[in-house]
Amino acid sequence: MAKKALVIIQDGVGDRPIESLGARTPLEAAQTPNFDKLADTGICGLMDPLSPGIRVGTDVGMLALFGYNPLRVYCGRGPIEAAGVNLEMGKDDVAFRANFATVTDDGSIVSRRAARIREGTGALAEALDKMTLSDGTQVMFRAATEHRAVLVLRGERLSHMVTPSDPGPDMAGEKVLEIQASLPQSAAAQRTARLATEFSRKAREILQNHPINQERKRNGLLPANYVLLRGAGVRRPMRSLAERFNTRGACVAGESTVKGIAKMTGFAVISDPAFTANLDTDIMKKAQAALNALKDFDIVMLHLKGPDIASHDNDPAAKSRFLEQVDTACGYIMAKALAHDNVVFALTGDHSTPCEVGEHTADPVPVLISGNGVLRDNVKNYGEHACSSGGLGRLTGNQFLLSVLDLIDVTYRFGS
Amino acid sequence: MAKKALVIIQDGVGDRPIESLGARTPLEAAQTPNFDKLADTGICGLMDPLSPGIRVGTDVGMLALFGYNPLRVYCGRGPIEAAGVNLEMGKDDVAFRANFATVTDDGSIVSRRAARIREGTGALAEALDKMTLSDGTQVMFRAATEHRAVLVLRGERLSHMVTPSDPGPDMAGEKVLEIQASLPQSAAAQRTARLATEFSRKAREILQNHPINQERKRNGLLPANYVLLRGAGVRRPMRSLAERFNTRGACVAGESTVKGIAKMTGFAVISDPAFTANLDTDIMKKAQAALNALKDFDIVMLHLKGPDIASHDNDPAAKSRFLEQVDTACGYIMAKALAHDNVVFALTGDHSTPCEVGEHTADPVPVLISGNGVLRDNVKNYGEHACSSGGLGRLTGNQFLLSVLDLIDVTYRFGS
Repeated sequence: MAKKALVIIQDGVGDRPIESLGARTPLEAAQTPNFDKLADTGICGLMDPLSPGIRVGTDVGMLALFGYNPLRVYCGRGPIEAAGVNLEMGKDDVAFRANFATVTDDGSIVSRRAARIREGTGALAEALDKMTLSDGTQVMFRAATEHRAVLVLRGERLSHMVTPSDPGPDMAGEKVLEIQASLPQSAAAQRTARLATEFSRKAREILQNHPINQERKRNGLLPANYVLLRGAGVRRPMRSLAERFNTRGACVAGESTVKGIAKMTGFAVISDPAFTANLDTDIMKKAQAALNALKDFDIVMLHLKGPDIASHDNDPAAKSRFLEQVDTACGYIMAKALAHDNVVFALTGDHSTPCEVGEHTADPVPVLISGNGVLRDNVKNYGEHACSSGGLGRLTGNQFLLSVLDLIDVTYRFGS
Repeated sequence: MAKKALVIIQDGVGDRPIESLGARTPLEAAQTPNFDKLADTGICGLMDPLSPGIRVGTDVGMLALFGYNPLRVYCGRGPIEAAGVNLEMGKDDVAFRANFATVTDDGSIVSRRAARIREGTGALAEALDKMTLSDGTQVMFRAATEHRAVLVLRGERLSHMVTPSDPGPDMAGEKVLEIQASLPQSAAAQRTARLATEFSRKAREILQNHPINQERKRNGLLPANYVLLRGAGVRRPMRSLAERFNTRGACVAGESTVKGIAKMTGFAVISDPAFTANLDTDIMKKAQAALNALKDFDIVMLHLKGPDIASHDNDPAAKSRFLEQVDTACGYIMAKALAHDNVVFALTGDHSTPCEVGEHTADPVPVLISGNGVLRDNVKNYGEHACSSGGLGRLTGNQFLLSVLDLIDVTYRFGS
């Protein structure tokens, strides 16, 4: 029977010892009997998403975990978000991440997220889509989760070397930034900055008087009357996992970045409104979706954003509780899937997010691989301390994924 | 007294836990008191021939173990086989692996190995050697072990970017493939494909009526009436180990690929008809040859193909038995050589070949280094599980060889 792999990616799982938890990490403080069983019967180690000492974003960490070298294929966040909303990019297109925002007539930002607008963004996006800019440059515009959206410019001589109009998080009261060429000597960059500025001005005119915003104002809500842009990027050619190896992959996820990367790398994306990419996501429903996917796919990635959310909120107790819920879901999958005896389990994260830092750090991520035929080491628990003496040693995200693929026999031989 | 190193390379030694062996690997199940003594007195670890998760062939694994970066120097199998039969390649030559085969007039393969022909191949090769092709392209052709041979084309504007005529193992009944440029836009590749096709046609004419084949037919044997080609490659410049370091190396081996790589890297090759590159090889004779070589050389590689053969045959018991015989031979060398107190012992493999897979995998290889002055760790046995907590950690084949060279003081300092 063909071997299958289930890779559980707990976003930001790695942490540091915390005083209030008795100098244990949230993962070590959590009761995780199923993770520990996998550790006891498998091989553990520490993983650096890119390289020791290098902090990564979820996008870069996930690219590595999907088996790519981010230094070669990373292209900025825009194209990833475009893939996440099914916008097909051409090779000369430039994509931006976009936020619906509330901006005054003099350019001051009242709310960078239009008070976290949730309803009506589809209609607003439709009003901006297919706009034509100077020189026939075409606009593609799609709403994403909540206040988020994606802009793609299609035309001649475009460049991703432009600065953002979005000044970044928590910048209420700040002015919208002027979009400029970040490579001033590039005519294409200068041109793209002018076109993005033209888009921003025309979008403002359209949004200002849009019925959705008129209704929002009537209801005392902030209007989504501006589109902030950032993360310009071009598409890099990427061969899908199926092209590179003899394998078919699926990714169970709620978060748009993860879904975008999964699509770019040729994975089928399995999502559901109950997958909220937050602490309230339906973990058991995700587990069931992963279990079902194992029937049709060789490798299934199960992504959970929760640990990273709790870490950014500096809440180690919430992080431990979430990890315990994932452990329960993991036990459910183990009970159902191990009956087939052909599933290799892998536990990892896209990076560490220590609660006391509240940000991604370069601390290595505890990882393990377990299953029929997988080597064993002396580690008996899944945690940062225990995994540091594991038999996998220390490896990169890319090497970790390749090791999993090798164990399900879908890789090929270099040399003869 | 100068230090010496003995590196015992057990081909395909690494394995996975096997149910019938009580969830132990063949190495763990074998009684290997001498290997264990080296583990107890030395330092152990896990080795990835190239990088974690990457499967390698014997050629690539051996290049790494001889201290080279296969990504830089690997040139296809042809040039390695050419070195194995002492064919000196020029920098513009292209070498192919060749098989004597039995092929019908319409191009169907009756036997890819001419029924594993053993006798008369030297005379057949001589009849093809020195043939001249279009544009004055010269042919060098040599018989190798059994049905195997090597073709080198010498001329102007040749390329290794051509496809094989050999459809691969177990393809009786299949047609001979047309040799084509694998880089269609390259005129040199197109030209080389034409020349290799011309060689194949002329070789068929010569072989069809050769006295050796007429005699084979009279004796009811399949004629060796065709030369199948594959593994085209060019020579990459490689500095010998003696050029790179202050050292002289010898390699005790029976297998032609290993002998070829040893020659390419400047090692003296010590072989003997009793070294069969199979389970029936004369292990004690090899051990004696290695012991003798330690007198004249600084580093001696002792290669044993047996474990890989047993693994490809899915025979863990045979693999264990062979490893026990190597352990005994290792004990013999230890008893004789340690009297001098100056030999560093290293145990490794070129890759893992788990019996239950029957193919090379990327599972890391258990390794150790032991000898006077070598660091010790807590590992007491030589095996996959034990070595996973060893003090060498996890390193590449190249790094392993350099570590051994360093321990015998033949390396140089980077920096001042």
